[in-house]
Amino acid sequence: MGILRLGYAHIRVTDLEAAKRHYIYTMGLRPTLEVGNRVYLKGWDEWDHHSVVLEEGGVGVVKVGFKVAKVEDLDDIEAKARTFGVTTERMSKGDNPEVSDGLRFFLPSMHTIEVYHEQTLVGLEVGDVNPFPFPRDLMGIGVPRLDHALLGCDEVNTSEQFFIDVFGMFPVERLVPDMDHQDVSVATWLSNGNRTHDIALIGGENYSGKLHHIAFQLEDWNAILRAGQIMAIDDVPVDLGPTQHNITRGKTIYYFDPAGNRNEVFADGYVAQRDRPCVLWSLDLLGRGLSTVDRNLNETFLTVFS
Amino acid sequence: MGILRLGYAHIRVTDLEAAKRHYIYTMGLRPTLEVGNRVYLKGWDEWDHHSVVLEEGGVGVVKVGFKVAKVEDLDDIEAKARTFGVTTERMSKGDNPEVSDGLRFFLPSMHTIEVYHEQTLVGLEVGDVNPFPFPRDLMGIGVPRLDHALLGCDEVNTSEQFFIDVFGMFPVERLVPDMDHQDVSVATWLSNGNRTHDIALIGGENYSGKLHHIAFQLEDWNAILRAGQIMAIDDVPVDLGPTQHNITRGKTIYYFDPAGNRNEVFADGYVAQRDRPCVLWSLDLLGRGLSTVDRNLNETFLTVFS
Amino acid sequence: MGILRLGYAHIRVTDLEAAKRHYIYTMGLRPTLEVGNRVYLKGWDEWDHHSVVLEEGGVGVVKVGFKVAKVEDLDDIEAKARTFGVTTERMSKGDNPEVSDGLRFFLPSMHTIEVYHEQTLVGLEVGDVNPFPFPRDLMGIGVPRLDHALLGCDEVNTSEQFFIDVFGMFPVERLVPDMDHQDVSVATWLSNGNRTHDIALIGGENYSGKLHHIAFQLEDWNAILRAGQIMAIDDVPVDLGPTQHNITRGKTIYYFDPAGNRNEVFADGYVAQRDRPCVLWSLDLLGRGLSTVDRNLNETFLTVFS
Amino acid sequence: MGILRLGYAHIRVTDLEAAKRHYIYTMGLRPTLEVGNRVYLKGWDEWDHHSVVLEEGGVGVVKVGFKVAKVEDLDDIEAKARTFGVTTERMSKGDNPEVSDGLRFFLPSMHTIEVYHEQTLVGLEVGDVNPFPFPRDLMGIGVPRLDHALLGCDEVNTSEQFFIDVFGMFPVERLVPDMDHQDVSVATWLSNGNRTHDIALIGGENYSGKLHHIAFQLEDWNAILRAGQIMAIDDVPVDLGPTQHNITRGKTIYYFDPAGNRNEVFADGYVAQRDRPCVLWSLDLLGRGLSTVDRNLNETFLTVFS
Repeated sequence: MGILRLGYAHIRVTDLEAAKRHYIYTMGLRPTLEVGNRVYLKGWDEWDHHSVVLEEGGVGVVKVGFKVAKVEDLDDIEAKARTFGVTTERMSKGDNPEVSDGLRFFLPSMHTIEVYHEQTLVGLEVGDVNPFPFPRDLMGIGVPRLDHALLGCDEVNTSEQFFIDVFGMFPVERLVPDMDHQDVSVATWLSNGNRTHDIALIGGENYSGKLHHIAFQLEDWNAILRAGQIMAIDDVPVDLGPTQHNITRGKTIYYFDPAGNRNEVFADGYVAQRDRPCVLWSLDLLGRGLSTVDRNLNETFLTVFS
Repeated sequence: MGILRLGYAHIRVTDLEAAKRHYIYTMGLRPTLEVGNRVYLKGWDEWDHHSVVLEEGGVGVVKVGFKVAKVEDLDDIEAKARTFGVTTERMSKGDNPEVSDGLRFFLPSMHTIEVYHEQTLVGLEVGDVNPFPFPRDLMGIGVPRLDHALLGCDEVNTSEQFFIDVFGMFPVERLVPDMDHQDVSVATWLSNGNRTHDIALIGGENYSGKLHHIAFQLEDWNAILRAGQIMAIDDVPVDLGPTQHNITRGKTIYYFDPAGNRNEVFADGYVAQRDRPCVLWSLDLLGRGLSTVDRNLNETFLTVFS
Repeated sequence: MGILRLGYAHIRVTDLEAAKRHYIYTMGLRPTLEVGNRVYLKGWDEWDHHSVVLEEGGVGVVKVGFKVAKVEDLDDIEAKARTFGVTTERMSKGDNPEVSDGLRFFLPSMHTIEVYHEQTLVGLEVGDVNPFPFPRDLMGIGVPRLDHALLGCDEVNTSEQFFIDVFGMFPVERLVPDMDHQDVSVATWLSNGNRTHDIALIGGENYSGKLHHIAFQLEDWNAILRAGQIMAIDDVPVDLGPTQHNITRGKTIYYFDPAGNRNEVFADGYVAQRDRPCVLWSLDLLGRGLSTVDRNLNETFLTVFS
Repeated sequence: MGILRLGYAHIRVTDLEAAKRHYIYTMGLRPTLEVGNRVYLKGWDEWDHHSVVLEEGGVGVVKVGFKVAKVEDLDDIEAKARTFGVTTERMSKGDNPEVSDGLRFFLPSMHTIEVYHEQTLVGLEVGDVNPFPFPRDLMGIGVPRLDHALLGCDEVNTSEQFFIDVFGMFPVERLVPDMDHQDVSVATWLSNGNRTHDIALIGGENYSGKLHHIAFQLEDWNAILRAGQIMAIDDVPVDLGPTQHNITRGKTIYYFDPAGNRNEVFADGYVAQRDRPCVLWSLDLLGRGLSTVDRNLNETFLTVFS
């Protein structure tokens, strides 16, 4: 079975109280554990113990976790990683609260990745017997789930190949500077199944180890606007949107958490399939790729990482 | 009864064929008459002969027309205009094709205004017996109707007062530089009934006689995005949006026709009422007033007129 | 100026506590006064003291109030009502808490109507200086405002004519059993300005004095679904919808309050205008007129009144 | 890799011309081949040669095809089917126009299933280099893609187990008459990845071999309404909707093609995952499961099959 999804994003924040206010009161995530300088949170439509970890001290991404379907998948991924040339170490149950044993390694892009096969089951907030479509009284934006992350790389293609060869993902769209050399991309969007993308990579000088954004899924274009209205009321700085990406067709707003980590609310996008033709974008049309309607590139979007 | 609505906007375009392509093929207006260097158009949910007139030669607004309910309203408006200090002249049936006799005068802002009581009735495109909710095969964006216009003024308050005293309108929102002198506004949004606004005015040096934009109404926030997607496909330059105005709460995209006249697609907004408290905006929050989510002022929006 | 709008609906409920839970917790109206067996409520986007009055004891409509722009309008309406053949009486300030003096009379359909020129100004919940687009934490469905009412009549046309002659309204759509006698309608939708309708009438045996429904306005089609989801969670009985009326083009759900009064949430609809061609419906297409998509007539909709 | 998706539905129609008018003019599918008494069609966001086959003569489903990722997957499925107790036969390239060789067998529910690894690549209608988000001028409803099918079974659980054991699918929701025996379901919704469901089964006397519906995906709740409006204009009989299923959370309209085959337009639904808790429904709440807002069971929905 292999990789199921991006299971958690563990990020640094400069002020834990400010971060809690943002992620709980504005975004509507539910805290499931607070220990030391860390808070663990989940969305209402997630069942595992947490999908976001906030750790006080700095900014940026500590690590991201991918969940596999079965414990045996760990061996398979370990072997494939070794073949790829990436050395993995075993992590123990309890290294992360409520998370099973698993693997840990550095992506070629220098991001720490963890792979695990289990988290404590907390359950859907609506339950699983005759559930209503959502919990009645959600806080703020009420995001249901973590969707994907976009990571920075000095060089995109090695990490892209890692996700293909070791994790079994496939690229759905690629930004290709030279259409005569389509194997070289400066950004890539990879899916693990039918979500438009589960992980994306963008290349640039000194981008390695950095976070461009993590994204939460919303229902649709109307939910995107409502999220933006709540952001205005709660004084959340917005980087871009509401708009529709032409790349992935997702509807989106980019914004910053109080520490300066970029987050996204994302909705829709097409149904990815392994045999769907991979879409290529040329650099001159990146403005439209990013923002269908106004076709503008926004300076901060391409330069601010955490 | 008095003023019913902004009935038509007559604007100049540099290239009539390019303008026709834009207003018919992209916006979905229906041409009802072409004569000389002019084309007359209507939206599918309008019943009078035309709401937009395109005239080849330059750029900007030639004049705007307001429809009154009855021929007797002309006398009343003429008298009130005289009291206000504005001299009106009578126009004849046929001065404008398919338009009745009426009044013509200069606003204090130097815009030419016409007032008429009748246009040739063309009828709703869906008919008026057991109609469907819309015509099945609309072209492009398929705008149903002209909604409002925003005119430039060197000085806002005299023209604002004209619309109040002579046309019987009322301000719904006002941009007030000095909250201690709320009688002085630099922008004002005026309604004639329950539409959020029917006409708006914005002040600045050498703005008199100029057009900021004319606006077409769309159904809702989803229709706004779809309009923006069509604009991207048809290569229409977008100035701002999709976003929600905090002022009027309308959902919006601003864009330019091929001649450089700014147009808007606009949806929703609240229900105006004569006794609804008029909203005041301070200059420092104009960014949010203009664009709720990202709270940015956009340079061209405040400086480009036609 | 005359009639501004339907200002309040005063209805009977069998159990005041159950009604309060429904109108406050589920619908999101705000209570502004509770006195004796009555509760007064307003929507967040209304500024006057109340738009809904709940009175314990039975079911159905006690009376509805229409607001006029100025005290002088009372004289005008009184005179026109007398000409029409309807006798009005004067009501005093304080007959209704926080409501000015005014007129009271019986419609030909035997409904009690009040006309007033002032209510205590409570203000918009978002304020009127640099307001946000909505209050952040609304309860349940969070309806912004009362929109219209549909009243039963033994005979529609006399009451319809009253609203035209005395209140200055105009019909936007009419259900006409015999297209050769278009003056006879069995249902009619009347507007007072640009709202699709402010009052509607439906005819049938022993309908006089009865309430078909009162309607609250919502933002759009998405808000209609969200309202329906909250109704499911809160176990509110739904009569019809979500669907789109072809008549008025409004998006809608009909449901019952705990006493059995039908309510509606309503969104969109076209912009009414005095010169817009009045739409006629034949009886055989009433199914589509009521529910565009499935074109079904629903038995309770045509027979259950309170 | 195994099963990618439901690749095609091959159905019978009584009148090929009427069916073509419906599927092409109303639904907006594109014909890619017409041969003999068959028409092959695809959605604009599909890349393989066809997803729907219409065959004149009767009503109901001829067969459905599932696509696998690789030719080797055929051997794997063949072996698993044999273990399960289902005998497969090999089909040849060209048995179905533009479809590779593969497997053919009867489900325990007596439906003919085909499994193939390739169809002629026609490509996305928007292309795969710098594509726009959709083709500008779609016909009618403009459905992008086939999503899922619901098949009838005399007995659900054997076929359900087949999809789990042989196709590697997993149940996302199950209708369970007796909560003490959760292994026995009368309806089940199975996913193959992240789509809410790819195939569903419903049980009843003499349901085997029958089709409840095939479903096309639309963008969101607004697209569902627009589809319903087009159905009204084109006089397509509607069975149910617009509404939201509580089961799967999809937004939906059910309707009939001219031959009487039930079709669905479907949008949204949550993101399925192999480790997401499977939702159980009890029979007494099936009304809400089917239609969240009005919570009604509709007689035809449960009894009409083709």
